[in-house]
Amino acid sequence: MEIITIAEARTWYCAADPVHDFEHVLRVYRTAECLAEVEGADPEVVRAAALLHDACGSAPGGEDGQRAEHHLASAEFAGQVLAEKGWPPEKIQAVQHCIRAHRFRGQDEAPLTLEAQVLFDADKLDVLGAIGAARTIAYAALDGQPTYAEPSPQFLKTGVKAPGEPHSSYHEFLFKLRHVKSRLFTASGKALAEARHAYLLGFYEQLGAEVRGER
Amino acid sequence: MEIITIAEARTWYCAADPVHDFEHVLRVYRTAECLAEVEGADPEVVRAAALLHDACGSAPGGEDGQRAEHHLASAEFAGQVLAEKGWPPEKIQAVQHCIRAHRFRGQDEAPLTLEAQVLFDADKLDVLGAIGAARTIAYAALDGQPTYAEPSPQFLKTGVKAPGEPHSSYHEFLFKLRHVKSRLFTASGKALAEARHAYLLGFYEQLGAEVRGER
Repeated sequence: MEIITIAEARTWYCAADPVHDFEHVLRVYRTAECLAEVEGADPEVVRAAALLHDACGSAPGGEDGQRAEHHLASAEFAGQVLAEKGWPPEKIQAVQHCIRAHRFRGQDEAPLTLEAQVLFDADKLDVLGAIGAARTIAYAALDGQPTYAEPSPQFLKTGVKAPGEPHSSYHEFLFKLRHVKSRLFTASGKALAEARHAYLLGFYEQLGAEVRGER
Repeated sequence: MEIITIAEARTWYCAADPVHDFEHVLRVYRTAECLAEVEGADPEVVRAAALLHDACGSAPGGEDGQRAEHHLASAEFAGQVLAEKGWPPEKIQAVQHCIRAHRFRGQDEAPLTLEAQVLFDADKLDVLGAIGAARTIAYAALDGQPTYAEPSPQFLKTGVKAPGEPHSSYHEFLFKLRHVKSRLFTASGKALAEARHAYLLGFYEQLGAEVRGER
């Protein structure tokens, strides 16, 4: 059973996507390794899943649904790669479950194993903090959306945008990022999230105040 | 002598550029109005210059030199617009000087009048704070550059990148943004810059610490 090296994994990622690029993968990999150690998760499964979890990602503006289905395509790809490396079927399935469940939004496959919960938390920690703000702003820019737009009363109440309302990075913060901390599974992931969550909240508070000319 | 309305100015700007879009122009306009009032600058000249200063801007990835020369093209355009509105030549020239000098980097036309110094400061205040971080990150993303890359020892020493070194938003912060506060002209601009400068420094400190896995 041959492991995946970082150098090999690097070849699967597109440098042109600053949001799901290999730097993101490396951060998730390192965070997941730490969480796995503290939580007692299988490090081989966690490492392989972290290096493969976004291998079939797509940049903003890609084909419709491509990004939405990237976890399924990446799990398929992981299966091929690991089978070629002689991994046993149960280990491959464990990695594939981690990858499919890393995008859990309620309707999808939930992370049921400790390894899947570790990958989920490590991936979500990368949308918090200054890194989370930066990735969300870069994603919005590449998608032709503004960094900041005042949300409509309708969006604030229901999460559904009014006709013509942009999906600014601030909308993404309100809709998703500020709730991420409460969705983590592991105790060590939650502990790491505290300061990053607080920083992200402070960032959007500062941004809004500057936009309104208050600071 | 007919003034420029915000609605009219909006038509000159491209919504697709999140860095020099009309939201940037509006923020500069409002900041410049405040600085003009405190400093005793001519509000008509400052308002017109603020609304016109980026009218011929270009997004990252545009033609070579297009962005570099946008201040000259915008000053030309301002001359045509204001002449059509019956502005007297000396007022038009005052506005044109503001616009040409807003990009002052040492070799260019320096802001010699109070109005030009007010526009310069208002424009530069918009690269500080959370807004400055967000605009720099969005610009890097649109230019295919990463948010963060570790600068080479050569870049840290000389400001010249090593072969193949990316120009991340952190490079831009080191090269330009952290020096902006010390280049402002007006007392009210410097006062406003203090907190935004400190916030921007803190942002990149936090970002670097998260990237290195320290926070």
